[in-house]
Amino acid sequence: MENLYTNIKSRDLFLRAVKVLPTGIPGHLGPVQSQFIPTSAFPFYAERAEGSHFWDLDGNRYIDYMCAYGPNVLGYNNEAVEAAAREQAAKGNCMPLPGRIQVDLAEKLVNTIEIADWAFFLKNGGDATTFALMTARAATGRTKVIRIEGGYHGVAPWTQGPGAAGVLETDLKENLMAPWNDAEAVESLMDAHRNRVAAFIATPYDHRIFADNQLPAPGYWQRIRELCDKHGVVLIIDDVRAGFRLSMKGSAHYFGFKPDLACYCKALANGHNISAVVGRESLRSAASRVFFTGSYWSSAVPMAAALACLGELERLKGPELMISLGEKVTAGLKTAAEKEGIDLVISGVPSMFYMRIANDDSLMMQQEFCAQCALRGVFFVSHHNHFLNCSLTDDDIAQTLETAARAFKAVAEKYPENLKK
Amino acid sequence: MENLYTNIKSRDLFLRAVKVLPTGIPGHLGPVQSQFIPTSAFPFYAERAEGSHFWDLDGNRYIDYMCAYGPNVLGYNNEAVEAAAREQAAKGNCMPLPGRIQVDLAEKLVNTIEIADWAFFLKNGGDATTFALMTARAATGRTKVIRIEGGYHGVAPWTQGPGAAGVLETDLKENLMAPWNDAEAVESLMDAHRNRVAAFIATPYDHRIFADNQLPAPGYWQRIRELCDKHGVVLIIDDVRAGFRLSMKGSAHYFGFKPDLACYCKALANGHNISAVVGRESLRSAASRVFFTGSYWSSAVPMAAALACLGELERLKGPELMISLGEKVTAGLKTAAEKEGIDLVISGVPSMFYMRIANDDSLMMQQEFCAQCALRGVFFVSHHNHFLNCSLTDDDIAQTLETAARAFKAVAEKYPENLKK
Repeated sequence: MENLYTNIKSRDLFLRAVKVLPTGIPGHLGPVQSQFIPTSAFPFYAERAEGSHFWDLDGNRYIDYMCAYGPNVLGYNNEAVEAAAREQAAKGNCMPLPGRIQVDLAEKLVNTIEIADWAFFLKNGGDATTFALMTARAATGRTKVIRIEGGYHGVAPWTQGPGAAGVLETDLKENLMAPWNDAEAVESLMDAHRNRVAAFIATPYDHRIFADNQLPAPGYWQRIRELCDKHGVVLIIDDVRAGFRLSMKGSAHYFGFKPDLACYCKALANGHNISAVVGRESLRSAASRVFFTGSYWSSAVPMAAALACLGELERLKGPELMISLGEKVTAGLKTAAEKEGIDLVISGVPSMFYMRIANDDSLMMQQEFCAQCALRGVFFVSHHNHFLNCSLTDDDIAQTLETAARAFKAVAEKYPENLKK
Repeated sequence: MENLYTNIKSRDLFLRAVKVLPTGIPGHLGPVQSQFIPTSAFPFYAERAEGSHFWDLDGNRYIDYMCAYGPNVLGYNNEAVEAAAREQAAKGNCMPLPGRIQVDLAEKLVNTIEIADWAFFLKNGGDATTFALMTARAATGRTKVIRIEGGYHGVAPWTQGPGAAGVLETDLKENLMAPWNDAEAVESLMDAHRNRVAAFIATPYDHRIFADNQLPAPGYWQRIRELCDKHGVVLIIDDVRAGFRLSMKGSAHYFGFKPDLACYCKALANGHNISAVVGRESLRSAASRVFFTGSYWSSAVPMAAALACLGELERLKGPELMISLGEKVTAGLKTAAEKEGIDLVISGVPSMFYMRIANDDSLMMQQEFCAQCALRGVFFVSHHNHFLNCSLTDDDIAQTLETAARAFKAVAEKYPENLKK
């Protein structure tokens, strides 16, 4: 009999948590948000993390393909990043003035990201998208923003959907929605709202949740760039999720186009708390006029961590490495699924692959697969793209594929009627 | 001849900074935002900080009365906080699941702050005020918010003023403005917008910039509480700036009233990156429905730092200590000013005192005083409340008053026509 993980201590702690925290575990890590289905298979809390692994409260070890939803890009507790952070912390972190590291890091981003003539630092991905939009509005004197249906740019009211709790109709009033990969729809919106569109914002490819991820169609981005130029619209790339997992020069560079502004966060500092907007010279003056700041925005430790993280990513050729690791993992997963008559559809860039079991139209088999993996020490979630990190080893991959083979087998046994003949 | 500070290295670095960062130093620490007037007297960058002091790039040491605009509450690099942060960092920080510390910290806040039945963690003060407003809207199904004229609640568009760069009229459409300490004006707004006001938001007292700070008039808060109850309006206290410098139980407790939601940030973790909203039971369900999260929001290190910080503040009776230190400093400053015929007006709670030289109607003498202090190693700014921290020593205070005496003398020599006879 196989020895499957149990999560007694996670569940005990959760019973304390629900008394003092709304939903017990708030936000995107919360089981109530239902990525952990069936919840009984997943731990709720992490005790520690190192390299490509984390451990839950009950001492179970997981090979991690969520990477804290992106921030873990080099491996947890990467020594180069942590040494830089400790060195800066010994000097000072949140001080009455910025540290010299702020200038070093801005120079590094300007020298790294293709379109960057300047950099601006913030704390959340959502800070970055909101600042970028405000900059576009300040630059153009216009109000409207074209967004992609199903796209995610944080949790500020303007980024949420109609009817979301606490979100008003007025919060969404200036949003114009276009389907992904539909340049004609974008053109129609720009024509219909001539001289009123401040910005077009999108992720570099469509890495939405609950659906196969879609790369840009050939010529899509080049056409969007033309339309933005023609209509004087600021092109904003939300590279919060994909940044530094496709190319060090920016995901826009990977797809062969140049945005006006680009937003970074997750992979920037290997989990230290910082985000950034970079922009072209033409937007510098507008960015200077927008007042946007916060208590910890000049903190030096996350900047030191970011500088070290970018250096390590360069040294390792991080994006290429993670793409290649993702290719190995996904090829192996497909083969293992195939053996059980399961049709595993992989989409997106391999360093951020999305997977779906196509044998049924629901997520039932996919959820069961993720649960069976979690019970055996491999951490996938069922409806979100995954994240690779540079510290994943060949041994991790071998163990992952062995575990996946068992998990696919368990899924096949539970859903025999859905299998391919 | 006195040996005054110079800031050559700060200025050299700033010349590099303006090439890669909008405004060179962005945000509230930026010299362009003009708190450093005359700029030639102030450093632009901090090299390190320890206890009640920081050092600039040129090696000059300053006794610090800005405390990083609030986060430094125990003294820079407080050993108890840093030890807790290091211990947690060795285990893990930003992981795919929260750490157990999230529950410990929520329990601590619920046990510490008078009105707290639950806690929710975020990253910026502005995250907290926006989440609180969204929660109030979700709870009431209403749209409008009553704010205080001149109040500051962060940089989200709804918190900024009309005409600010990147801010739209629609962003401000649901704001209703009332003067500070004017309960009748609030009553009129609630009557005029019956069943449409979701929230009243204000800081516990009026600690605005560029003006004497004003405590609540007797009975003001009790009247606001009655009006909110009568009209079903959620009472939000923005305790981001004053939190834990007036009372551990909340600044509302200090002034004898109970809000429904309270926002914390700066002093929560001695400079580590975290903010919090706490609320009463009646708002738990609404808070649960609002989707609000970010990449680093469950990071464990800032939570460990916050738990240690709250413990140290309790042990030291931090708020009472800082109020008493503030009383010593301000009494000494007034006496030193008086000797030179300068009328120094001190306002606000002593742990967050605001000061103004009343001999002229401009800020010219005040700016000159701050500059003369900076040139001699005491860091004040001219139009913002100051912040005390627990590590300020009697020796620091003696040096501060000695320096201030020289600075007042220099001001008196420069503006002889303005002196009191």
